[in-house]
Amino acid sequence: MSSPQTTPVSLAELQAPLRRRLDAIHDELRRIVEADFGLITEVNSHLLRMQGKMFRPTLVLLADEASGGPDPRAVSLAAVVELVHLATLVHDDSVDHSVLRRGMPTVNSLFSHQVSVIMGDYLYSRAIIELVRLDDMEPLRVLSRVTNEMTVGEMRQQLSHDPLTFTEEAYDLLIRAKTASLLSGACEVGALGAAPAQRAALGRFGDALGMAFQIVDDLLDYTADEAVTGKPSGLDLREHKATLPLIAALPRMGDAGRREVAALMRAAEPHPEQVARVIGLVTDAGGLEYARERAQRFAERADAELDLLPPSPARESLRASITYVVERQR
Amino acid sequence: MSSPQTTPVSLAELQAPLRRRLDAIHDELRRIVEADFGLITEVNSHLLRMQGKMFRPTLVLLADEASGGPDPRAVSLAAVVELVHLATLVHDDSVDHSVLRRGMPTVNSLFSHQVSVIMGDYLYSRAIIELVRLDDMEPLRVLSRVTNEMTVGEMRQQLSHDPLTFTEEAYDLLIRAKTASLLSGACEVGALGAAPAQRAALGRFGDALGMAFQIVDDLLDYTADEAVTGKPSGLDLREHKATLPLIAALPRMGDAGRREVAALMRAAEPHPEQVARVIGLVTDAGGLEYARERAQRFAERADAELDLLPPSPARESLRASITYVVERQR
Repeated sequence: MSSPQTTPVSLAELQAPLRRRLDAIHDELRRIVEADFGLITEVNSHLLRMQGKMFRPTLVLLADEASGGPDPRAVSLAAVVELVHLATLVHDDSVDHSVLRRGMPTVNSLFSHQVSVIMGDYLYSRAIIELVRLDDMEPLRVLSRVTNEMTVGEMRQQLSHDPLTFTEEAYDLLIRAKTASLLSGACEVGALGAAPAQRAALGRFGDALGMAFQIVDDLLDYTADEAVTGKPSGLDLREHKATLPLIAALPRMGDAGRREVAALMRAAEPHPEQVARVIGLVTDAGGLEYARERAQRFAERADAELDLLPPSPARESLRASITYVVERQR
Repeated sequence: MSSPQTTPVSLAELQAPLRRRLDAIHDELRRIVEADFGLITEVNSHLLRMQGKMFRPTLVLLADEASGGPDPRAVSLAAVVELVHLATLVHDDSVDHSVLRRGMPTVNSLFSHQVSVIMGDYLYSRAIIELVRLDDMEPLRVLSRVTNEMTVGEMRQQLSHDPLTFTEEAYDLLIRAKTASLLSGACEVGALGAAPAQRAALGRFGDALGMAFQIVDDLLDYTADEAVTGKPSGLDLREHKATLPLIAALPRMGDAGRREVAALMRAAEPHPEQVARVIGLVTDAGGLEYARERAQRFAERADAELDLLPPSPARESLRASITYVVERQR
């Protein structure tokens, strides 16, 4: 998706100026989830080792700094946003019976299904307790709404397995609920001290960024090298998940192609060659290109929202985060 | 457990004067969980048909009226308390792979494991959204703490399956977290408008009542008629759960008895006769009597806390609720 105006931006470059505050977020996370019960402590340690990219907390800090911060509470709020994300991952992995996450065993695979359901609840209720401690109703309002949207997204995901009935509109609703809502919420809670117009602009920025983020994620499932992403490519197809490339390609395919897709979706365990053939069909029908273009349009929309903020280094970092999202290879 | 001072009290009698407010709670519940997504609406309808005894909302209303109410917000708060309870049941059933709840199929059995994990999260996040709408940090503080305690209780439950190492102290910690915390929380959020001393007394009342409630529940598993409770007796033993009667009986049993218990705990599917023999052993060793006496002591402690409230019909209903808890047959 390279275009003349953009050069690849690494997340590490984006995060370098925030290093001290990001480290403080790790300490905050540890404090917020701390338990005096052996098994919970054990799962917590595993989850804290399972270090993610910290993209959502990065957005909280950048939104904070781009809208009048630094506000000292932003570090705790960023930790809560990452915690909500973590709780969601734990339940998602349990729902999907996933075995690996970020290259490490999931809680359900390392401990048990039981432990993962309970731990998700534990982490989420700790997030709420921390928000109550901060004694401000606004982040509670934003993040409870977002969490609820994410559950609706997960439910939509459960019903996304019939590509012949799953529309682009349903896909948009799914990824907005599942992904864009939390990125939008992260930007909003970073901007709680800002003027309403700036807060709203950052919320819309996060929404558009999140839409692009998920579309690129779904594209990478078709295109990326397994050695780079840490997960096998074509996984969505193997799990019978219809994402944008397939949804866009289907109406442009011939009958033979569509039959091939239907056969894959019926196969309990699709053969790797079957998956490779469908990836080829989707590519040939322009599904990848279509998805790339939509991601690019969301990226442009995100970019436009930033014009509503005063110029600052943090605003330029937010701009660079758009480039990171659309250019990333994992 | 009859004693000269107490006569059985039915929950219906306790609830009769509250009928109008309890009906309003049903409407509130429906409003709070409402969804515009088909599958969620379907699960909601199932859950709302799966009518419980509404004991926790009853406590909210009685605590409200006994401490200066009626406060109009108590109805919404009572609905939230019931909703938190419902969300917990949905996840507990998913964790335990339970098939029946309140005589109806569980969400995990009727829909799927996936749907039950997601729905628990959905319901809980809706409870938080409603508390945010009420715009008062106090019930959020109480109920987020309680929900977190309940997850720790569920985790303790997972580790309660070795009766030879499961102590009475660990049992107390388990039932306080799993059951007493929400009954205590229900009484506290009912008394948010009251003087701190009254609120604290009602919190302690709910804690003691909850301890008695769970001990009686565990006793009923040993003694109750399947036709009355709607669940088979000896279920805890069959599921290898050590509760107070067994914990108290074990040290008073001979070696042969202990071997019999160990054999049951090792059996993947204990034979009904094996279960019946262990129930007999626990009874003979005084395990039931011991548990009854402890329930009675918690009941007395609950009763004493009520003396700190001004006299009122609601206070006498709270007193009667203690009798209901210890005398109930289901």
